[in-house]
Amino acid sequence: MSEMKTAAIIGGGVIGGGWAARFLLAGWNVHVFDTDTESERKINEVLTNARRSLPALYDHILPDEGKLTFCDSIEAAVQNAAWIQESIPERIELKHAVLNEIQTHCSKDAIIGSSTSGYKPSELRDGALNPEQIIVAHPFNPVYLIPLVEIVGHSDREERALEILTEIGMKPLIVRKEIEGHIADRFLEAVWREGLWLINDDVATTQEIDDAIRFGFGLRWAQMGLFETYRIAGGEAGMQHFIQQFGPALQWPWTKLMDVPELTDELVDKIANQSDAQSGHYTIRELEQIRDDNLVAMMRALKSRNWGAGELLNTQDKGLKKPGGKDLSQPVITINRRVPVDWTDYNGHMNESRYGQVFSDAADRVMDMVGADKAYIEAGNSYFTVDTHTSFIDECKQGDQIINHSTILMFEGKKLKLAHELKAASGETLATCEQLLIHVNLHTRKSSAPVGAVHQKQEDFNSAKVTQTHSEPAQ
Amino acid sequence: MSEMKTAAIIGGGVIGGGWAARFLLAGWNVHVFDTDTESERKINEVLTNARRSLPALYDHILPDEGKLTFCDSIEAAVQNAAWIQESIPERIELKHAVLNEIQTHCSKDAIIGSSTSGYKPSELRDGALNPEQIIVAHPFNPVYLIPLVEIVGHSDREERALEILTEIGMKPLIVRKEIEGHIADRFLEAVWREGLWLINDDVATTQEIDDAIRFGFGLRWAQMGLFETYRIAGGEAGMQHFIQQFGPALQWPWTKLMDVPELTDELVDKIANQSDAQSGHYTIRELEQIRDDNLVAMMRALKSRNWGAGELLNTQDKGLKKPGGKDLSQPVITINRRVPVDWTDYNGHMNESRYGQVFSDAADRVMDMVGADKAYIEAGNSYFTVDTHTSFIDECKQGDQIINHSTILMFEGKKLKLAHELKAASGETLATCEQLLIHVNLHTRKSSAPVGAVHQKQEDFNSAKVTQTHSEPAQ
Repeated sequence: MSEMKTAAIIGGGVIGGGWAARFLLAGWNVHVFDTDTESERKINEVLTNARRSLPALYDHILPDEGKLTFCDSIEAAVQNAAWIQESIPERIELKHAVLNEIQTHCSKDAIIGSSTSGYKPSELRDGALNPEQIIVAHPFNPVYLIPLVEIVGHSDREERALEILTEIGMKPLIVRKEIEGHIADRFLEAVWREGLWLINDDVATTQEIDDAIRFGFGLRWAQMGLFETYRIAGGEAGMQHFIQQFGPALQWPWTKLMDVPELTDELVDKIANQSDAQSGHYTIRELEQIRDDNLVAMMRALKSRNWGAGELLNTQDKGLKKPGGKDLSQPVITINRRVPVDWTDYNGHMNESRYGQVFSDAADRVMDMVGADKAYIEAGNSYFTVDTHTSFIDECKQGDQIINHSTILMFEGKKLKLAHELKAASGETLATCEQLLIHVNLHTRKSSAPVGAVHQKQEDFNSAKVTQTHSEPAQ
Repeated sequence: MSEMKTAAIIGGGVIGGGWAARFLLAGWNVHVFDTDTESERKINEVLTNARRSLPALYDHILPDEGKLTFCDSIEAAVQNAAWIQESIPERIELKHAVLNEIQTHCSKDAIIGSSTSGYKPSELRDGALNPEQIIVAHPFNPVYLIPLVEIVGHSDREERALEILTEIGMKPLIVRKEIEGHIADRFLEAVWREGLWLINDDVATTQEIDDAIRFGFGLRWAQMGLFETYRIAGGEAGMQHFIQQFGPALQWPWTKLMDVPELTDELVDKIANQSDAQSGHYTIRELEQIRDDNLVAMMRALKSRNWGAGELLNTQDKGLKKPGGKDLSQPVITINRRVPVDWTDYNGHMNESRYGQVFSDAADRVMDMVGADKAYIEAGNSYFTVDTHTSFIDECKQGDQIINHSTILMFEGKKLKLAHELKAASGETLATCEQLLIHVNLHTRKSSAPVGAVHQKQEDFNSAKVTQTHSEPAQ
């Protein structure tokens, strides 16, 4: 695939920009076409947001960014593109014209995704040169952070589509039956209508509605959805019980959704004014960064639980280039990553405890290299750190790339002694750490001698060291 | 208020149990009444979940738990109760009978909250002895973690109600107009109906719907609600632009909510079977703990951003007893807290980096004590840690109480040298740390001499030490 890692972004607003960021930061080259003269500025603004938030979701460094090119025609943009993403305004005749132009010039193997929320694939494909090439790939704002992308429309290239979307860090969800609004927007639409009514009838303000969401069911839904949440609510009696218990409430007049509120000027003004009162003290740019930092911190929290969006991140981490090496007698890179927002403190730099996190993660990586891997730990053995001495030399900030070099100083009996040197991408030393680990039996929680593969690695390490010492010329 | 810190829980299911946990863990005594013989077991199960998750949301230790008493009558339960919470089944004649019994025996000053989602305060108050005493206080499951509680019904004791609910860690939201379903449940109901249709029509399974939520808008709504999210989507053009752009979609047939699906046996079976396929490999107890750990980790992530539910936690932390002391010549307790779930690692114990977190937080506390507080830092001065030496002596696990004792070893010129000893509640030492901090000018990011209050504290500290040394008898 390396010969064809180019994506074409047709329509470069907030959504197109988010797609561009996803591909670029995953190492793809990106061609952008938009008739809007403001497009370059808009895309670069989205990219600035993406660069400060996305890379630090991961515990390894992302591949080098691809090349971004602004093109002056669809024909130029789709050249060599394996993925073409259409994110133009929601007008079907415009979509048809653009899709036709794309298909006239693009590779027959390319996948054409449409960001549409309003049209079904059968509508997009109507009159197309190669209908199966077109699918709906409907993302969610901010596209560079929210993993979900709904895939609609049976296609002979579905497998390849899922592969590419997964590679760029997304969670493709196949919508098996085409339907207006796909899946997620049906819920959003239902909630939006209800929200409009509550404001229209002066029951609640935008602030009150948002608080009812984010202090309540929003927290639940960030990690389990509707049904898993209710499964728990049903308790030991289970889902059947829950539905039967709450079923009757469906007959109650709890929503006004049988009707659609008219968007009068008065209602639009009311919402806009309430929204100003709620959030007007922040600029949109500030709100974007607050939102992104919140999302990154929460998704990283879910990562520590290996659940939902966090499990997805862990899976992606496995695919990223893990630092390390085979020659244990030499310093080896054990950590290569960026500083995530949740590692910084009120001084605006990485908190001292997170230097410790880096050295702890580095020790895990060395353990892995000496055979004390996941299977070894599951079999009841591990290393615990018993002593560290850390010198903090320089600061680093959110988003900075940091690289840790580890050296094994001693690997004998129960002891594993490491020296770490944490460096900035520029090569400057940020901190050093000497760390003593002791081998333990996880059942007794007491120190013990290494066994099996680790024992063998230890012998190899020490005999290599002896050989090395002996083979060195006398000074 | 200390003379009257008793809450009565009338109806002890999952919701009543959650209320009991909120009050108990905030230091209130709790009386429970329920006709169900299983109530004691059920409440204790909820309490077990609450004890393993709630206390570690905070960075300080909660007050001692109150006393839990199971009563055999409503009369006994409401004795001395300042708050009475009714969480019995949703049948209005039953509610009226129980509320009448409560009002016959309770204090005239008590507040009676009803957990009802189905009834409006005017309905509950119909025929009541003292109508204004009754309000709707509608919580969300799990009640011991989700902060939101909707308060409906004008009352002469509203202010006191908000005070109590805030004290027990909740986020009261006043619903200004009584309406069926209050606010949040109107949204939940709309989403629930739409979900039932999608399953009924075989568009999506419970798993697909849950993924559409938790990988997508669920993440957004855990930190910003519907309107703040859309405000950003509107971009610089703002809310007015957003509504006008997306308004027309309201006329599209995106939801089926004009109609109510019939809960046939077939539909109930379909949902239950899909839910089994999705989550059946976990017991309800396992799912509860997964959910709670996810919620704690995410809310703590929001806490690090001081936003939404996290900002609420920070506010509560300020009200909790902060350790510390005035006599800097003696060891002082600087940290007293529980180990949160996000501090543990694959070894099942607190990760080494989080020992560093404790010592970093302890140093912050000492800085506070020597005058290097928030205002001092905002004025452009701070201390940075330059060297630590840590000995890890024993393990601690999720939920364990840990207490850190700090001693100032040196407080001279640019240097502040601390010794920390971290102990378990049992008194055993878990780790020790020597930490060297250097005073810095935050503008130049270079070391500098302390100024103002910190300089003064330093002089006092050293002259007290000299006096102390001189006054010691010769050996």
